[in-house]
Amino acid sequence: MKPYKEWDREQLMQEYDRLRAEYEKAKASGLSLDMSRGKPSAAQVEISRGLLDVLSSTSDLTENGLDCCNYGYLEGIPEAKELIADIVQVEPENVIIYGNSSLNIMYDQISRSYTHGVMGHTPWCRQDKIKFLCPVPGYDRHFAITEWFGIEMINIPLYDDGPDMDMVESYVNTDPAVKGIWCVPKYSNPTGTSYSDETVLRMAALEPAAEDFRLYWDNAYNVHHLYDDRQDEILEILQCCKEAGHPDMAYKFFSTSKITFPGSGIAALVSSEANLADVRRQLKIQTIGHDKLNMLRHVRFFRDEVGVREHMKKHAAFLRPKFEIVLSTLEREIEGLEIGTWIRPRGGYFISFNSLPGCAKKIVARSKEAGLVLTGAGATYPYGKDPEDSNIRIAPSYPTEEELIQAMQVFVLSVKLVSIEKILALD
Amino acid sequence: MKPYKEWDREQLMQEYDRLRAEYEKAKASGLSLDMSRGKPSAAQVEISRGLLDVLSSTSDLTENGLDCCNYGYLEGIPEAKELIADIVQVEPENVIIYGNSSLNIMYDQISRSYTHGVMGHTPWCRQDKIKFLCPVPGYDRHFAITEWFGIEMINIPLYDDGPDMDMVESYVNTDPAVKGIWCVPKYSNPTGTSYSDETVLRMAALEPAAEDFRLYWDNAYNVHHLYDDRQDEILEILQCCKEAGHPDMAYKFFSTSKITFPGSGIAALVSSEANLADVRRQLKIQTIGHDKLNMLRHVRFFRDEVGVREHMKKHAAFLRPKFEIVLSTLEREIEGLEIGTWIRPRGGYFISFNSLPGCAKKIVARSKEAGLVLTGAGATYPYGKDPEDSNIRIAPSYPTEEELIQAMQVFVLSVKLVSIEKILALD
Repeated sequence: MKPYKEWDREQLMQEYDRLRAEYEKAKASGLSLDMSRGKPSAAQVEISRGLLDVLSSTSDLTENGLDCCNYGYLEGIPEAKELIADIVQVEPENVIIYGNSSLNIMYDQISRSYTHGVMGHTPWCRQDKIKFLCPVPGYDRHFAITEWFGIEMINIPLYDDGPDMDMVESYVNTDPAVKGIWCVPKYSNPTGTSYSDETVLRMAALEPAAEDFRLYWDNAYNVHHLYDDRQDEILEILQCCKEAGHPDMAYKFFSTSKITFPGSGIAALVSSEANLADVRRQLKIQTIGHDKLNMLRHVRFFRDEVGVREHMKKHAAFLRPKFEIVLSTLEREIEGLEIGTWIRPRGGYFISFNSLPGCAKKIVARSKEAGLVLTGAGATYPYGKDPEDSNIRIAPSYPTEEELIQAMQVFVLSVKLVSIEKILALD
Repeated sequence: MKPYKEWDREQLMQEYDRLRAEYEKAKASGLSLDMSRGKPSAAQVEISRGLLDVLSSTSDLTENGLDCCNYGYLEGIPEAKELIADIVQVEPENVIIYGNSSLNIMYDQISRSYTHGVMGHTPWCRQDKIKFLCPVPGYDRHFAITEWFGIEMINIPLYDDGPDMDMVESYVNTDPAVKGIWCVPKYSNPTGTSYSDETVLRMAALEPAAEDFRLYWDNAYNVHHLYDDRQDEILEILQCCKEAGHPDMAYKFFSTSKITFPGSGIAALVSSEANLADVRRQLKIQTIGHDKLNMLRHVRFFRDEVGVREHMKKHAAFLRPKFEIVLSTLEREIEGLEIGTWIRPRGGYFISFNSLPGCAKKIVARSKEAGLVLTGAGATYPYGKDPEDSNIRIAPSYPTEEELIQAMQVFVLSVKLVSIEKILALD
């Protein structure tokens, strides 16, 4: 297809009218679909139902003699630590198991740093200004946490191989107010890209001006591959940091929310022993411990890391065709028109679409008008402000394939209409 | 028995030698028992095993159409709110269901007040000094939270009908630095006493100098009666506060940790709609929501508040004889000697023993020497400092009855030995 901008005005007007009619038809079909979050579909969630049979009233509720149905084991049961450690490629002593939400763990890290400081350093609430680097586009809930604590967020461009490391180095290594960077190193939310080895090594080799600087390493999509034969793998950050002489520079976050039941999984903080010792001081004040029966359920359901990988293949079987629907629709309908770009991810939950500058909000609004709710434009940027108004996060997991085909129809119509309006300066 | 202090010196020396021999014998028997926490016994926990059969892979995981095995319902499922609301005598809109730990909810309230303030008021970290009133003896984990945040704790004597309300009023109504009071209004930890109606009404009628003052009302033992025929009931605090013109003055905390499985239950924050609106601002940043499948399990296991009450009778059947062992041993061995006082609670998990002043630490140490670990002396006071060194928390729930008989033997021997040492000024 020829780029729209090369079409003559009349052709484009005709195309616009044709698309407009199609759009009105689609709108009239009464679509009502929420694709705003990276939520597994109902059918997909079903594959974890076996987890509910693992424990019954006749089960042994001890594991190596440890009673999982009474108080104790503040940091989680050893078997759960082992399982998570294997998945995230560290040692069990680097793991503390929490409740069901890794987001909550991230919140806790920031909150504790704010109230009590990191490993003896001045609490952030007693420091003048705290800044975080935010690779963009990124995860809205990360940005929401730092915004909630009044932390100044600095946009860092995210490329196919990771954040702009020149920029990261120049901020981190010179400005003591920069205390952290939000990273989704693998199958990034929303771009689906993964950090290259060079990026990870440069992260580990940072020489922060602030001693309480940490990498906030969100391993949300660690085992969330779409394909058997094409998978991203990244270097293990704790090990890299250790080798670079910064053993305490990373907090790694993990949860099974998109492995078993969203909201009913187990989550973990993964870090150096010194960092975990710092965390324990708070943990023992904060809680009597997390749900050990749910840990036991997960341990017995998966047995080991191989069990998790096998389970993830079942998820992929649901997700792969949906990603293909989105990608093939974009290729068929948008490719060549030069009104948008996107990446073909090998894992994760999202496809990131970049429209012509200044069009994202309008595309999302246009889609909504026809019954398709997308993640709000701008949500992938700190403060909800995409300076280009270009990035849109597509979350294909929740709808059925039939709904998704319909949804993508609405989406590409919206993209085309808004793009033509921009090119023709119609609005 | 005649009070020890009225015995002549020689009698007392003889008694001491006799007790000493008995103690050495007990010590040689090799007892090794941890009675430091209010932990249900292994057999007692078994009664909740049915909870593990409620959900299986073939269960309907929706409740009134709401999907409990996917993301969503940040505040918990409506049915769980209804169940908890009925138990704690409020409306469902006054309830937010959290994870497994009410302690964690309390931590969150303090932490959020510290970082973001209460309903628009200046965050505590930006105020000069924050103070909390601490009825004593009280719960060590409450005091640990306030100490962690550098909050000055002020001891308030706890009487049989509640805290010294004259003192509470004089602090709260005049000092704007006083932001809260830790209350365990029913079957208090550790005294087992409950607040009288007058105490609750005076609490609700406080006119705090600080607008961000709140009652931190820990309903830990709300349904934890020991007897069918003798039960404490207290006035519902939210309603009392509302009627007194202070609808937002109380945060109430609840969990099922000592109802179903300790550490694998559900917990709730109960408060006015305005307070909950304030909490929600944080909650949506902090987490994607708590474990709804565990909420569903609890809802279906109990069906309603009556189900909970019936279940609690089974707990009482385990606890009652243990309380009786402690109380009858104290009555048989200590009564009349004037070396200690205690209260006969109708519920809860503890019996609070007050030794002669200056003896508690020694009694605990003496017990430990013979293999019996008690809650550390002083733990029931802020900063671990019992000014009288007199209060000891006895937690009879965990040991078997046989172990408890042995343990109480060690305990009364320790009490007697240390008391005679004090009276004779032997040490």
